Amino acid sequence: MLHPLDGGARCELTSPTAMPQAGGFLWNRRMMIQVTCRGYATAQFMQPEPAKYAHAPNLEAKTFMQPEQAYYAHHPGRFVYVKDEDTGDLFSAPYEPVRAPVEAFSFVAGRHDLSWTVEHLGLRVEMSLGLPTDDVVELWELRVTNLSGRARRLSVVPYFPIGYMSWMNQSAEWRADLGGIVASSVTPYQKVADYFKNRQLKDKTYFLCERTPDAWEASQAAFEGEGGLHRPSALQGERLAGGDARYETPAACVQYRVELQPNQRETWRFLFGPALDDAEIAQVRDSYLGEAGFARTRRAYADYIDGGRGCLRIETPDADFDRFVNHWLPRQVFYHGDVNRLSTDPQTRNYLQDNLGMAYIAPAVTRGALLHALGQQAANGAMPDGILLVEGAELKYINQVPHTDHCVWLPVCLQAYLDETGDFALLDVAVNGLTVAERLDAAMAWLHQDRDARGLSFIAQGDWCDPMNMVGYKGRGVSGWLTVAAAHAMKLWAGISADAGRADAAVRWQAAAQELNDAANQHLWDGEWFARGITDDNVVFGVSSDTEGRIYLNPQSWAMLSGAASAAQREKMFAAIEAQLDTPHGVAMFAPPYSGMRDDVGRVTQKHPGSAENGAVYNHAASFYVHALYDAGENDRAWHALRRMIPGPDEADILQRGQLPVFIPNYYRGAHRQYPRTAGRSSQLFNTGTAAWAYRSVIEGLCGLRGHAGGLLVRPQLPSHWNHLQAEREFRGARFKLQVRRTGTARVLLDGQPLPDGLVRHIEAGREYRLDVELS
Amino acid sequence: MLHPLDGGARCELTSPTAMPQAGGFLWNRRMMIQVTCRGYATAQFMQPEPAKYAHAPNLEAKTFMQPEQAYYAHHPGRFVYVKDEDTGDLFSAPYEPVRAPVEAFSFVAGRHDLSWTVEHLGLRVEMSLGLPTDDVVELWELRVTNLSGRARRLSVVPYFPIGYMSWMNQSAEWRADLGGIVASSVTPYQKVADYFKNRQLKDKTYFLCERTPDAWEASQAAFEGEGGLHRPSALQGERLAGGDARYETPAACVQYRVELQPNQRETWRFLFGPALDDAEIAQVRDSYLGEAGFARTRRAYADYIDGGRGCLRIETPDADFDRFVNHWLPRQVFYHGDVNRLSTDPQTRNYLQDNLGMAYIAPAVTRGALLHALGQQAANGAMPDGILLVEGAELKYINQVPHTDHCVWLPVCLQAYLDETGDFALLDVAVNGLTVAERLDAAMAWLHQDRDARGLSFIAQGDWCDPMNMVGYKGRGVSGWLTVAAAHAMKLWAGISADAGRADAAVRWQAAAQELNDAANQHLWDGEWFARGITDDNVVFGVSSDTEGRIYLNPQSWAMLSGAASAAQREKMFAAIEAQLDTPHGVAMFAPPYSGMRDDVGRVTQKHPGSAENGAVYNHAASFYVHALYDAGENDRAWHALRRMIPGPDEADILQRGQLPVFIPNYYRGAHRQYPRTAGRSSQLFNTGTAAWAYRSVIEGLCGLRGHAGGLLVRPQLPSHWNHLQAEREFRGARFKLQVRRTGTARVLLDGQPLPDGLVRHIEAGREYRLDVELS
Repeated sequence: MLHPLDGGARCELTSPTAMPQAGGFLWNRRMMIQVTCRGYATAQFMQPEPAKYAHAPNLEAKTFMQPEQAYYAHHPGRFVYVKDEDTGDLFSAPYEPVRAPVEAFSFVAGRHDLSWTVEHLGLRVEMSLGLPTDDVVELWELRVTNLSGRARRLSVVPYFPIGYMSWMNQSAEWRADLGGIVASSVTPYQKVADYFKNRQLKDKTYFLCERTPDAWEASQAAFEGEGGLHRPSALQGERLAGGDARYETPAACVQYRVELQPNQRETWRFLFGPALDDAEIAQVRDSYLGEAGFARTRRAYADYIDGGRGCLRIETPDADFDRFVNHWLPRQVFYHGDVNRLSTDPQTRNYLQDNLGMAYIAPAVTRGALLHALGQQAANGAMPDGILLVEGAELKYINQVPHTDHCVWLPVCLQAYLDETGDFALLDVAVNGLTVAERLDAAMAWLHQDRDARGLSFIAQGDWCDPMNMVGYKGRGVSGWLTVAAAHAMKLWAGISADAGRADAAVRWQAAAQELNDAANQHLWDGEWFARGITDDNVVFGVSSDTEGRIYLNPQSWAMLSGAASAAQREKMFAAIEAQLDTPHGVAMFAPPYSGMRDDVGRVTQKHPGSAENGAVYNHAASFYVHALYDAGENDRAWHALRRMIPGPDEADILQRGQLPVFIPNYYRGAHRQYPRTAGRSSQLFNTGTAAWAYRSVIEGLCGLRGHAGGLLVRPQLPSHWNHLQAEREFRGARFKLQVRRTGTARVLLDGQPLPDGLVRHIEAGREYRLDVELS
Repeated sequence: MLHPLDGGARCELTSPTAMPQAGGFLWNRRMMIQVTCRGYATAQFMQPEPAKYAHAPNLEAKTFMQPEQAYYAHHPGRFVYVKDEDTGDLFSAPYEPVRAPVEAFSFVAGRHDLSWTVEHLGLRVEMSLGLPTDDVVELWELRVTNLSGRARRLSVVPYFPIGYMSWMNQSAEWRADLGGIVASSVTPYQKVADYFKNRQLKDKTYFLCERTPDAWEASQAAFEGEGGLHRPSALQGERLAGGDARYETPAACVQYRVELQPNQRETWRFLFGPALDDAEIAQVRDSYLGEAGFARTRRAYADYIDGGRGCLRIETPDADFDRFVNHWLPRQVFYHGDVNRLSTDPQTRNYLQDNLGMAYIAPAVTRGALLHALGQQAANGAMPDGILLVEGAELKYINQVPHTDHCVWLPVCLQAYLDETGDFALLDVAVNGLTVAERLDAAMAWLHQDRDARGLSFIAQGDWCDPMNMVGYKGRGVSGWLTVAAAHAMKLWAGISADAGRADAAVRWQAAAQELNDAANQHLWDGEWFARGITDDNVVFGVSSDTEGRIYLNPQSWAMLSGAASAAQREKMFAAIEAQLDTPHGVAMFAPPYSGMRDDVGRVTQKHPGSAENGAVYNHAASFYVHALYDAGENDRAWHALRRMIPGPDEADILQRGQLPVFIPNYYRGAHRQYPRTAGRSSQLFNTGTAAWAYRSVIEGLCGLRGHAGGLLVRPQLPSHWNHLQAEREFRGARFKLQVRRTGTARVLLDGQPLPDGLVRHIEAGREYRLDVELS
């Protein structure tokens, strides 16, 4: 059912029904599109707030990107009907809306494009989608080949539903002058001020045809008729009626009536996207619509994506894992860091972690992001809930709810950046009158003071776990995780300070970290693990006496990182995690899931058991755990947790998850004891801080090629059942070729010479280094 | 295709495809449901803000009720699949989603219920929907009769999609203890404060079965499978699988496997609605689910609706018109006045006009509404944009945009109330320290001062025509309509004041009205008609030099009412209206429609030409015109304009409009020259101030039975081609039987005695009067 192609840079699915939600995604600097194997699509573009050019059939709520998108017949998608004009037989590619049981099916998620091949009725239909690097336009190529050995008369009918655009104004018609169907709308406004804001919105949707069709239809209802989408009435006749939509739901349907000789193939190209006006549509047509334009765009887009290919290539005993790490994981990291999830106000913690990932792809981006974020630091050292990226952006949705952890992510992100670059000069850069170092001091000071009398960190309406919004809304509740996370942040900043020659600061923040660790141990150690927090009303939770939400993963991972947990404590924590959080689908964020409301915890318990935060395998939390495990030298545990984040390795796992191994989703459903039917199912949502952390753990943990103030620290951490690993790593301009073998003696050779402490010093950019590591 | 039944209290449609959007609506004190003949449904209930218990398949925007609802396969609806278990043949009642070409079809919109009869495969399926008077629950009765003359094995499968309830939590399952499928959800919140607000929301949806089904399915996706809604996979097997929905889209599907002998009939009953918790579901079941409960509820609901049957019964040469006026028009008026469009913050002008209509149904309600509205008057005499009806309600949507006409509607509503009741004591009632009369004075004074140096009324961001939001947003633009409407309001208030013995006020407001009329004549008379207004930048619009929006109806109608228009002007205005605004579908609100943006007018021009305000036959405006025409004694013109508001009289007209004659929609599409295909189409939206005005015009204009301070003024205004009319009118507790005949001599007889001035004085409650009117 699933095949890696082109060395794994493409991934093929051969059934549209086995994993109905599976698909792939493409993005560029201004848009994103996720398309399922069956042809449903979700696209959004920035103007500057996220907007759509293909809509649902009703007035949709504007909201953040949701997991487990619900698909239904009239969901936006990109479809091509093919009708045999002699027999009347009909099918649609790739699969929806006709859902004919086709003879052959292939969906290929590529790094640079998405494509389908469908065979039915002796015909082969090929579709492919590409994007340019900067414009908001989909480039579709369609090919139909006659495999039947006899001449055929066909109608080939692309059907791109445009959906309900606006209650204020919507229409569509064939535009001979532009060579396509153009739908127009006006984004509704009621307040006068909104009118001026809306004037620059791209309220038109175009579907442009390279070749003039024989007929067309611009009204959804007229196309569908009484036949329904599985057998549209308009296709029962000879020709589409050429109708328009006037305050009716628009659709782009064009008909090509063709005769194909045996083995003859016809090719069509189309553009689909939004525009401000006719002039822009004409310009898009000129720029892209044609064989040469498509080829040029394909090359430019491949260059763009390959520019984010990351700093690592590996070859291990696990070929599925290699493919994912070499092709897909850095792509997902690049997506996050390059376009910030197509948000204008990313949550501060997301922004910093997404840019942490960019340290391994384009460190200059990380540097810029750190400076940009620090530019929005408050006078008291606090960081805002979201970082505004464009003029006029506003904090929306969850960013209007006060969270207390944002400062933590500054040293976390900075550490990765400095490890990768050694660019300590950044610390002296001035941002709004203070140096970066001073701003980090201020952020740590803010964390240090935002604690209660016991020395525990206040949680307000949330920390990393957004939905924990009622633990501390009265101003008294504290977060166990945040207490140790703040300690870890201070410890990191102490270490950076020491490396930067800021000895006083190093001592101060090391001591502060110890204070927090001590407080955590005094008030939150439950005997076998750390509690998640203490509510406004002084109820300790995430403890052994709880029947639900008894143990949370994050306080354990970060207590290990912060040093709060002793070796003896760690062993107890591992045992508890393995007994309670380990599931067939990965390590759960907490367990058992809440079955109902616990109103001193909040939204966590209002989510569905097994979904998102309520007891799911939330990969972001699992990725912190992996990081902590590598940090603790727990190689087997780390590998076990890391590997299960990635769909695969075998088809059964991929089927269970319902997702192709082209990204790590933000969660897999949990509650496998309560709801085994749905447990393990992928959210299909590729927005997640997991990607950056997973990539970091592969580079720095598994491969053990970690940056350091003094060079590159080499310490591969293979799982015990592996005997070898090869990797190629770019680092500070040099190239490192790593060969790891389990020989029974532990040593590191640099270009054949022993390197006792494993630290490669004095790295020369442009040089290639050979690293041979032998493991005991 | 269309048949009046039961004397016209029920209306039958015999094809589901001829008018796909046609349907009917039911409401009670807490909910409303509109259902199409094909089975699609839109229901909302108050808790206290409008909410849904059956949802779209995606996350819908919360918005005001939209015209021309877009339907699509997964739109909420109420459906029953019937499968022949021997042949596998399948259809669905009433029509969607299978859309089988059934042998017989009947949809009956009744005043008290909606029902369907469908015959296919030798089976008759009958469905009916009723509501209780106060609870939010749908009562569904389903009957299947074997007409085939042979024994049959069937599966009968009600399918009530519940849709996408919430991204936070949604699930559904069969509940043996409650005897039905119960879907649960949590309304999403992010801010803690919202959690407390949301706690009392009815987040559960139940589908309760009187008889335990043989099988069930609670997951939309599992039910549908690869087959699609037109041939659900779950119906291909013997039994539904009994599945649940866990963070999946819920649906209520239950299967009854039955054997029917020839002519055997089986009956099922179901309840569908929202609930807070299981206890409420159990209680609803106890209260309603059974033959006796259904019968009791049916009687109580009929009593409730009949309580709003209005004060008039007519018999004219136009039987279609009679049916509409006797059965449907007061029902629509009652709906508006009884539940205020199911809003918690009705626009002030809507609230007052809807309650104007109640003067003819339940005048005490009008009285209460006037007092309630005046309780929200500002200290400076201005009225707010919306009237808050419940504790905690907020001004939403358009009510956040400043409009300047709200004060106008106080004397307009009051006049109708006083005409109907003679209750002048109301004027002395104190509201927040001022009497009603003092508050009316203050409202008129506010209108009087809110004018520019020319004496014209400011428009701010709108007046009656909401979307005219940019004429005066800078604070200088004025409204031609509002100037004469304010004059009319002052004239009415002067008249009321005179009747109430407030002679000084009468003189003052009569003079003030004259000032406004003079200003209108000086600045807005364009030679053949009155201009619509003057923008902030001093551009007069709605004038002969405009190529679009050249003439508006409202300034003409109200200039006639206010006395601004002389007899000579009126004649010119009639000619202009008939040349430019009269269309085959009614009198347009303005013409020609705007084809594009004119940004000194605003949202009017952003709406689609022909839709809603942009050049449509906007019935509310037409209803003012009818009122003005009767006031001017223009009986033929009035009849012509009035009659075309009502769907019918013939089938061609009903087909064109796509609506059953059971309500007047807020608009018919206009732009009949530009877009003839869609012109005349009904909005299908029954929320409109038109209903009250049309009813008033029938009672007071056509039948000429108008209340007066001194009694009942009798002056029928039949169109010239009518020779007779009979009416029965309830008025101040008495009953009047009117007989109008065209005899050639004009006279009025009261109980056989001549009544020279046509005014019935000293009316005794409980008495019956006979009125014989002869027309010249």
